[in-house]
Amino acid sequence: MRLVEPANAAMLTDLYELTMAASYFGRAMNELATFELFIRSLPAERNFLVAAGLEDALDYLESFHFSEDGLGYLSTLGLFDEAFLGYLRDFRFTGDVWAMAEGEAVFPQEPLLRVTAPLIEAQFVETFLLNCISYQTMVTSKAARISIACEGRAFVDFSPRRDHGADAALKAARASFIGGADATSNVLAGQLFGIPVSGTMAHSYVMSFEREIDAFQQYAADFPGQATLLLDTYDTIAGAQNAVVVGRELAANGETLHGVRLDSGDMDALSREVRAMLDAAGLRDTEIFASGDLDEHRIRALLSAGAPIDAFGVGTQLGTSADAPALGAVYKLVENTSGPRMKRSTGKATLPGTKQVYRVERGGTFEHDTIALAEEPAMEGRPLLEPVMRGGRRTGPSPLLRAVRDRAAVSVRSLPAHLRALDGPRTPYPVGISAGIQALIQGGAHG
Amino acid sequence: MRLVEPANAAMLTDLYELTMAASYFGRAMNELATFELFIRSLPAERNFLVAAGLEDALDYLESFHFSEDGLGYLSTLGLFDEAFLGYLRDFRFTGDVWAMAEGEAVFPQEPLLRVTAPLIEAQFVETFLLNCISYQTMVTSKAARISIACEGRAFVDFSPRRDHGADAALKAARASFIGGADATSNVLAGQLFGIPVSGTMAHSYVMSFEREIDAFQQYAADFPGQATLLLDTYDTIAGAQNAVVVGRELAANGETLHGVRLDSGDMDALSREVRAMLDAAGLRDTEIFASGDLDEHRIRALLSAGAPIDAFGVGTQLGTSADAPALGAVYKLVENTSGPRMKRSTGKATLPGTKQVYRVERGGTFEHDTIALAEEPAMEGRPLLEPVMRGGRRTGPSPLLRAVRDRAAVSVRSLPAHLRALDGPRTPYPVGISAGIQALIQGGAHG
Repeated sequence: MRLVEPANAAMLTDLYELTMAASYFGRAMNELATFELFIRSLPAERNFLVAAGLEDALDYLESFHFSEDGLGYLSTLGLFDEAFLGYLRDFRFTGDVWAMAEGEAVFPQEPLLRVTAPLIEAQFVETFLLNCISYQTMVTSKAARISIACEGRAFVDFSPRRDHGADAALKAARASFIGGADATSNVLAGQLFGIPVSGTMAHSYVMSFEREIDAFQQYAADFPGQATLLLDTYDTIAGAQNAVVVGRELAANGETLHGVRLDSGDMDALSREVRAMLDAAGLRDTEIFASGDLDEHRIRALLSAGAPIDAFGVGTQLGTSADAPALGAVYKLVENTSGPRMKRSTGKATLPGTKQVYRVERGGTFEHDTIALAEEPAMEGRPLLEPVMRGGRRTGPSPLLRAVRDRAAVSVRSLPAHLRALDGPRTPYPVGISAGIQALIQGGAHG
Repeated sequence: MRLVEPANAAMLTDLYELTMAASYFGRAMNELATFELFIRSLPAERNFLVAAGLEDALDYLESFHFSEDGLGYLSTLGLFDEAFLGYLRDFRFTGDVWAMAEGEAVFPQEPLLRVTAPLIEAQFVETFLLNCISYQTMVTSKAARISIACEGRAFVDFSPRRDHGADAALKAARASFIGGADATSNVLAGQLFGIPVSGTMAHSYVMSFEREIDAFQQYAADFPGQATLLLDTYDTIAGAQNAVVVGRELAANGETLHGVRLDSGDMDALSREVRAMLDAAGLRDTEIFASGDLDEHRIRALLSAGAPIDAFGVGTQLGTSADAPALGAVYKLVENTSGPRMKRSTGKATLPGTKQVYRVERGGTFEHDTIALAEEPAMEGRPLLEPVMRGGRRTGPSPLLRAVRDRAAVSVRSLPAHLRALDGPRTPYPVGISAGIQALIQGGAHG
């Protein structure tokens, strides 16, 4: 089951990808070309990024194709001749892809993905690849920051209502999980990706009963051991008193009130007061869950102050990466049969040549990376780009999502400590450029 | 053709919508309830919003249903009994919906959408409705600001690569068009919505030819009268010289070079220099198109300075509404068979009762709105909420997208001038609360 069907995915492209393709096709310009996808620079609020989105990218590359509907629409534009439309009918991606694994820490200028394919194919896939990789990398990176702030406490993706459409809600759940979220409220993401799902209750549930305590009792009865009661519909402390009553009733029957949720007000003060009330009633196992406009900074402030909060729900700030809602990801031609290529636009120049990235680690900490030409002798360190697709087919099975999440955790833990700080700017992570690339730049790689 | 299938849409919900539904179902709590969707407050960077997303909301309400796959997954969660899962098998939306038309200016606290349905249905649809309406309202509102800045010049949605996933790219194109964009680069949006598509060329196209002028000549030959040449792959002024050569060649054959595109550097200075070069060569009809990190503020600055730019491509800032990437939209129970309901949470209280919004206009300018109870005698002004769905079916055909776009243009033009200013904060638009609602609040509507 897919959210975006392959025939829709083919059409989800900038018009210029098709006009350029038609132009190449018309003059039989279709020799091998290599494009690389990378992030130009870090948003001011980020010290590192964590790669994500590769799985969707590979799904797309393996499956996109044009339907007759799509071709019929293209023929109405007056831009494409029958020969080109006939070519698109059988158009498939047949190229090779090297990529960083999902969950790997990544820095500006480092290729996340390298596509080598006949020019028309390699160019055409630009729009979709940028769309799916940059958003997911952004959300995984944000989740990693939230995970750092949580210091081992759980957090849950609560973003579906704030994400930018349905596909974003799915991708946000998966990317958040990779970055360290423990669960999502998104049921479809649970179904498609096997991510644990969790949730509490809405204010409207409480308001649908004559008295708050009725709502609490019924919900606790319906979901024994799993109910988290929302306290602030009318007044958080009065709500906590009702929760205590319900918690004691459950305890008398040998059951546990799983948790209570704070969703407004002074979370620090309220969490202390509610914790004291729960503890005084012997409800030490009942957790306090907090939600409502949270981000890594607020979570850190609450935990630093000692607020007794056990878990967090994060919505808007996670799913929209609201403090850095876009990454400057680009997809650039770096080599073709005439040799390495280089764009020289003011402030937007690119590094020429087909590349590899090497990461040097000392004592479990990343020390520096080197961006080098793939053809240069191997540099010191672990090569980060691996072959993931040959001839349009995956080279192997996809890693399990849990393994990707573990990789992200290791990767973030291996960053120099100052980069894991939540406030910036910091001394950037050292990323060197190899002698081979520098020689190409100075030698004037075309143009 | 849909991007999100109805069975996926049903599952794209927060888990708590389903646990609450199960709880209501278990105790046969399914009397009529009314929920309203509204924006809590304006982002600091916005003086007004323009409603959008209703079409998707109605599509969803008419079509969502659970598939056996989905039900099978839900049964694995250990939260739902067979009776409830059997109920979900035939679960459909059967309620009534009143809504503001897409393209209508809307202000905080004003319901954009009002759902009256059996409680389980009315509650369940919360997550999806918030997801699809708040994102599209946000992008249409951003597009309206960009349209104001463009002062009649065209702008194009260039956002697909920056949008948060595939669905966002589609919704961004449609919402931008409603807000005033003239076209989109998104081919799928062209196919599905009939929005004009447009595009230029990428740097990689230029780099795929030995010389820049070769690329320009070939592209102009392939798309006569429609080619826009990208000038900055190597050097904008040298690129403009090449474009002039191509433009003269075309002119000699009675053809026209449609345009040139600036994508980096000092747009003001470059546009003047390039305009002068084009004019000196007699290429007065060749347009200058600008793109690259543009938003309403940069566009206004360029046009105020007198930069001779004819049209703009806007990507990131449009599709992600980067300066305000989320709206605080909520969906709240306002009335049930026990009467009007009201949430009292600190800082998040809601207005009780089923509502209507009236807008008073004088001399073509919106003067003030009043939020009133639907049952109160009609207030002065035009009622903004109209019945759009009865018994789960649309009350009539959908308006044409062009008509929605026209409505948005009229609506924005009718705003008080100070609200159309791009910088804030301004005196807010006056939105009054009726005596009927105030009486409910003071009388202590439940809770």
